[in-house]
Amino acid sequence: MEIGWIEALQEKIDDHMISARSDLDNYRYDSSFGEYSPEAVVYVTSTKAVSQVLKIANDYKVPVTPRGQGTGLSGGDLPVHGGIILDMSQWPASVEIFPDDLVARVSPGTLTSVIHAEADKYGLMYPPDPSSSNISTIGGNLAENAGGPRGLKYGVTKDYVLGLEVVTPEGEVMQTGGHTIKNVTGLDLTKLMVGSEGILGMITGATLKLIPKPSSVQTVIAAFSTMEEAGKAISKTLTSGILPAKIEFIDQACARAVEEYEPLGLPTDMEAIVLVEVDGHPTAVQEEATTVCKIMKEVGGTNVFLPQTNEEASRAWQARRLVSPAIAKIKPTKASEDATVPRSQIPEMMVRLAEIRDKYNLSLVVFGHAGDGNLHPNILCDERDQAEIARVEQAIEEIFHAALELGGTLSGEHGIGTMKSPFLEEELGPVGVDMMKRIKEGWDPNNIMNPGKIFPDKGQRLILSRRLEE
Amino acid sequence: MEIGWIEALQEKIDDHMISARSDLDNYRYDSSFGEYSPEAVVYVTSTKAVSQVLKIANDYKVPVTPRGQGTGLSGGDLPVHGGIILDMSQWPASVEIFPDDLVARVSPGTLTSVIHAEADKYGLMYPPDPSSSNISTIGGNLAENAGGPRGLKYGVTKDYVLGLEVVTPEGEVMQTGGHTIKNVTGLDLTKLMVGSEGILGMITGATLKLIPKPSSVQTVIAAFSTMEEAGKAISKTLTSGILPAKIEFIDQACARAVEEYEPLGLPTDMEAIVLVEVDGHPTAVQEEATTVCKIMKEVGGTNVFLPQTNEEASRAWQARRLVSPAIAKIKPTKASEDATVPRSQIPEMMVRLAEIRDKYNLSLVVFGHAGDGNLHPNILCDERDQAEIARVEQAIEEIFHAALELGGTLSGEHGIGTMKSPFLEEELGPVGVDMMKRIKEGWDPNNIMNPGKIFPDKGQRLILSRRLEE
Repeated sequence: MEIGWIEALQEKIDDHMISARSDLDNYRYDSSFGEYSPEAVVYVTSTKAVSQVLKIANDYKVPVTPRGQGTGLSGGDLPVHGGIILDMSQWPASVEIFPDDLVARVSPGTLTSVIHAEADKYGLMYPPDPSSSNISTIGGNLAENAGGPRGLKYGVTKDYVLGLEVVTPEGEVMQTGGHTIKNVTGLDLTKLMVGSEGILGMITGATLKLIPKPSSVQTVIAAFSTMEEAGKAISKTLTSGILPAKIEFIDQACARAVEEYEPLGLPTDMEAIVLVEVDGHPTAVQEEATTVCKIMKEVGGTNVFLPQTNEEASRAWQARRLVSPAIAKIKPTKASEDATVPRSQIPEMMVRLAEIRDKYNLSLVVFGHAGDGNLHPNILCDERDQAEIARVEQAIEEIFHAALELGGTLSGEHGIGTMKSPFLEEELGPVGVDMMKRIKEGWDPNNIMNPGKIFPDKGQRLILSRRLEE
Repeated sequence: MEIGWIEALQEKIDDHMISARSDLDNYRYDSSFGEYSPEAVVYVTSTKAVSQVLKIANDYKVPVTPRGQGTGLSGGDLPVHGGIILDMSQWPASVEIFPDDLVARVSPGTLTSVIHAEADKYGLMYPPDPSSSNISTIGGNLAENAGGPRGLKYGVTKDYVLGLEVVTPEGEVMQTGGHTIKNVTGLDLTKLMVGSEGILGMITGATLKLIPKPSSVQTVIAAFSTMEEAGKAISKTLTSGILPAKIEFIDQACARAVEEYEPLGLPTDMEAIVLVEVDGHPTAVQEEATTVCKIMKEVGGTNVFLPQTNEEASRAWQARRLVSPAIAKIKPTKASEDATVPRSQIPEMMVRLAEIRDKYNLSLVVFGHAGDGNLHPNILCDERDQAEIARVEQAIEEIFHAALELGGTLSGEHGIGTMKSPFLEEELGPVGVDMMKRIKEGWDPNNIMNPGKIFPDKGQRLILSRRLEE
């Protein structure tokens, strides 16, 4: 009798695996929407094991979905077509710093915050800082090309990857890129893999670029009575010749939610709060912070505040970090978006978001990385209220359309996953989608790696409430 | 009677073209080695024309080789399989700056120095600065992912590309990426195209990221009596917490050549000269320059010099820029390499290069971007001396092996082209090459776009003297 794929895995893989239905429940969800059952979970801890699993999966044409800590916000780690979950969370953390080369080698299961801490020991910095740093793995960050507030000055994950170890969908191991800052040998498979959301293979190791840690940091906070003023303050700062490390933005609803969640002294009677961080040489930082304060006041900013101690500055950034958990308390369900527009279009995008909020009568709040146009409109709702969820789905669709109309993109940070795939062609056009599919088909002829992500399944449309319908 | 592809081009393309053999001679060379004849040159000046040419070429399965100003150093614009040269040099220059978005839109035929000048008008900077900026087009820079001295701090061309207009090998037009700093929608075709050396399609427009121009710049120059000391000075500077914009290096032979070419006051009795540029806030720059001077002296540097005027600084950098033309005067032929090693391996690579020079009894000089490990060993020879050329070929092969052994790469800046393709698999392994070929085959099923580049033809090996043999 021919054995099935689960038996083949059990026979060949030394790493721990589960396939009993009752054990699989935790793998039905991630931090986005939808609920899907895998048929097996393999806890891989070596490149060899990943290769073995993919070879078997490829032979049996079984879908494989990679998963780190399950913190993804676009459904990248949901097994939408069943099959195997390749759980990378048990892979031992490993960070090797090469201070003379300003480079780090890391294992895929390492939490991003661990890389930050290790680099810091050498006076170095790994700049990408997704808000999930403390709970997400670098493997997940690489698969999704994670961003974060510091993206404004320092760029995103992709900008710091020099080389990767990759297991192809057919189970072959390859090294991409290398250990040097400059490398133009052949096609850039490194940057193709970063942000490919697991559809082109598994990342089993990475070489990251580090930079000298800025010796000084200063925060500036200001409040504005209108969105328009806040937008002007951001725009004026960015064209003043200063490139802050971060320019973050919190709207009134978010500020109120934070103050209810944990009183940190945010003004709750203003339409917008802007947080700026400048970093670099101490003298430069003090001058730049003074200039930023001046700009904030010139365009009507009030409560302009320059924290004088680390504690004061930490409190400001703690407020920014608490926005997400705080607004999650308002209603049971939170639909978090990351449609991104050119910086100059932020004021117009804010107007559109307010219109969409009113049109669909929804609790829509906005915060995010204003400096690079990467806003996070969040809709707070109740997924048990089917009429409301239908309005949310329409509102999200309109948010996507608005971002594209303003010259923006569906996703600045979270990835397309399964949620945004129905809108892919609207942004990329049929030729762009076709050329992407050709890469996928060439690399993964049996379509086993994370099927159902990026490219929409036939007839797929945005549905948030799948959990209830199924 | 069925018409041939030249007639089809003549009939459908409004843009100027030539196909008379006597007119094609200028297109047999570029700035690298080898001589190959195209059968036609089309001077395209619009996306539509590019699309029409590629559609005809694809129908007739005729090779197409893109060409900007012909300044490539790896043979990227040589028509090694004949066919059509797509000349982009007549495409009108166009730079549109969006100061609020810190973005520029450019046409492929624009000289890179024109982009620098236009950005400068807004107090902005386009950082990539290949030494060929004044004579090379941005289209060529994009195809080859050009670098330059500022790569150390600011990265290379790829790091500043937000979006592209691309004509696929089958003549379809697509937009990749966009106008926003953050964008994770789908596979990253933008960064796949940059550095793909024309084998995946034609770049017909680009959206580039700009940054605020640093308000202050300071140069430091030092001379060292041994290579080892120079290596230590570079390494110590890079681990001091300072990230200079540039760290360049000139060996004794290069310094002597420059002084003979144009006396600029370089010391000619020292083994190595190191040039450092720090930039940023004026106070920070002065402090950092002082620290760099101190480091240089501590490890044995002499003639340590801090230019006090723009003229003095310009003269130092003029000396660096003149290295290439100056050494070209030593002998009729110059083989310029760009094998790159991790920064920590620079001293060891210098030792290996001296060994190779002595072993093959060649005039081998070294200069380049020491800060990022991107050295430019240049062999000065005479291509009419077949015995010498044979030694040069062996020496270059050993340089490649040395770079790879030290954890480096075949090419940091110039691309693989036709010259380095025989060594591709040694760096990437068979799986890496196979995965690259799958992309090429999926995108260009008739292999019309720049065939014979990156991937070696069957049995191909390094030959510099083809011009004489044919």
